[in-house]
Amino acid sequence: MKTIGYAAHNAQSNLEPFHFEHRALRENDVAIEILYSGICHSDLHQVHDDWGGSLYPMVPGHEIVGRVIEVGSQVKNYAVGDSVAVGCMVDSCQSCDQCDAGEEQFCRKGMTPTYNGKDRHTGELTYGGYAKHIVVREEFVLRVPDALDITRAAPILCAGITTYSPLKEFNVTKGSRVGVVGLGGLGHMAVKLAKALGATVTVITHSASKIDQAKTLGAQQTLLSSDQDAMQAASGSLDLIINTVPVKHDLNPYLPLLDVKGMMVMVGQIGPVEEPNIAPMIMGRRGIVGSLIGGIPQTQEVLDFCAKHDIHPECELIKMQDINDAFKRLANGEVSHRLVIDMQNFSG
Amino acid sequence: MKTIGYAAHNAQSNLEPFHFEHRALRENDVAIEILYSGICHSDLHQVHDDWGGSLYPMVPGHEIVGRVIEVGSQVKNYAVGDSVAVGCMVDSCQSCDQCDAGEEQFCRKGMTPTYNGKDRHTGELTYGGYAKHIVVREEFVLRVPDALDITRAAPILCAGITTYSPLKEFNVTKGSRVGVVGLGGLGHMAVKLAKALGATVTVITHSASKIDQAKTLGAQQTLLSSDQDAMQAASGSLDLIINTVPVKHDLNPYLPLLDVKGMMVMVGQIGPVEEPNIAPMIMGRRGIVGSLIGGIPQTQEVLDFCAKHDIHPECELIKMQDINDAFKRLANGEVSHRLVIDMQNFSG
Repeated sequence: MKTIGYAAHNAQSNLEPFHFEHRALRENDVAIEILYSGICHSDLHQVHDDWGGSLYPMVPGHEIVGRVIEVGSQVKNYAVGDSVAVGCMVDSCQSCDQCDAGEEQFCRKGMTPTYNGKDRHTGELTYGGYAKHIVVREEFVLRVPDALDITRAAPILCAGITTYSPLKEFNVTKGSRVGVVGLGGLGHMAVKLAKALGATVTVITHSASKIDQAKTLGAQQTLLSSDQDAMQAASGSLDLIINTVPVKHDLNPYLPLLDVKGMMVMVGQIGPVEEPNIAPMIMGRRGIVGSLIGGIPQTQEVLDFCAKHDIHPECELIKMQDINDAFKRLANGEVSHRLVIDMQNFSG
Repeated sequence: MKTIGYAAHNAQSNLEPFHFEHRALRENDVAIEILYSGICHSDLHQVHDDWGGSLYPMVPGHEIVGRVIEVGSQVKNYAVGDSVAVGCMVDSCQSCDQCDAGEEQFCRKGMTPTYNGKDRHTGELTYGGYAKHIVVREEFVLRVPDALDITRAAPILCAGITTYSPLKEFNVTKGSRVGVVGLGGLGHMAVKLAKALGATVTVITHSASKIDQAKTLGAQQTLLSSDQDAMQAASGSLDLIINTVPVKHDLNPYLPLLDVKGMMVMVGQIGPVEEPNIAPMIMGRRGIVGSLIGGIPQTQEVLDFCAKHDIHPECELIKMQDINDAFKRLANGEVSHRLVIDMQNFSG
């Protein structure tokens, strides 16, 4: 299947129009016309090879919403015309303990990322959502519930599941006290999802300008991290912190906010953080734990949960051809929530 | 009750003989003649005020085994002649959620430490186990099972409970894969306890000389942390790591040893560690968590567990008057397991 997208050809270049071909459908494949594609901060990192191992040409994008246009002969659950989604993975071994447990992101043989990966059968590069089409095996296609506004659903596929997964893993429910550090794409979804799960949500930010945003999103409490008295007064007041900050930073101001047995879940920074002091961890059995997106069953669960609770990411639609400006805004911290590419008006 | 011990009078001085008086017995108090008193690395830290807040004169010692010599009028569970023990705490509020849960070490009003603390009623300094006697309220007195050799039981009260508590918290059982980093007082107990719980135990050490010790203690596997190939081959092979290293160090070599959802429990270093890389935590939902001794019910449980499984700390008995030499050996890393003061031959 011939299609067109935008690709980076090396770590320094702008993204440019890129004609490429998706594989002919295998019997369990679903071909999707992409309608909306979210821009994740990790797209920026991967394009610029910040984490190493980037493969070019790279068509980024792993928050994909679209419509089925063709299905393979053995596809059981999807038909032409269905509203569907694709997240951060397009394949895994499907036979290890992690895959069996629906935790394909931790597949023992390594999951296949939606882009910047290689097809398990042919070794061809995978190309993501900054394109008109994608071909994905049925098991990694999600259903978009009718109740979701498809123009605003794409960021659920990464920002949504990445924050929903630890909220569920740590049993957030009515009465839980959840802190959210950082209020970008991930953080603002953490606020909405935690609140819908019944938690009291506290946004902790170093930016006074985010306080109003936090309240608008539904946070019941806000903490300015530079306000020492307020931070001190909030000691031990949280059961769980979702830390979405995507750069190296200091965890020490946040650890004492946790109650006994409280956990801080890291979902933003993939790299070093400043030296943590172990004392508050020991003195209250507090911990720091990482979390990576979520498995396919849970990704369907968060889509259904968002539909049920009328949760939509805050999206700003942009045109595909404005992607390089969008990357600049993202790099400069000028984007408060999520940019989403409207693919319907992109014809290459 | 008049008694004698050894005390530090400031952060720089040697310990010296010290005459002092314990309170007259309250109705729920138990007076104990101390027979054996373990020397914990934290004694050294507190004597030298390494953590700040040290109170002098300080009679250290929180691994105490002795015999009841007198009981208050309302004491129900102990009688003169009983073999008993005292650990790191001698009081707590007894009415908060943590105390109700048997986690007195996390008492909301702060537990009273066995030494370097203040009595909740009178504000007098608490004095620990480097002495002939101690007076403790009944609720913080433990029973020493007959099957335990009292000459070798004292380190269970800190080194034992400190490692037993996280093993239980993280459900170590038959088939669990437990790593132990550091093989001093805490580490060697972690090996014995984890093995008795049914785990396969791997000792990770940077000292080739500890490999044989680890095997003698019962570790089924050993890893020299400088052996990059062996460390690489052991990636993902552990469910839980008990990290007993009591100084600032680098956690990054150890995190990849954890399997998906594995946790590293910090029980040694109370202070900063080097910058951890969050990547392996995110890529496998791995975590770092602190743990502080254990509650009173669990301290009794570990004493009973050690009695049942014939587990005794490796003890080297020393005389009270040799305490300053013992501290020097400890500071120089010349002690492989646990030094225990034999108080029976100390008369002041």
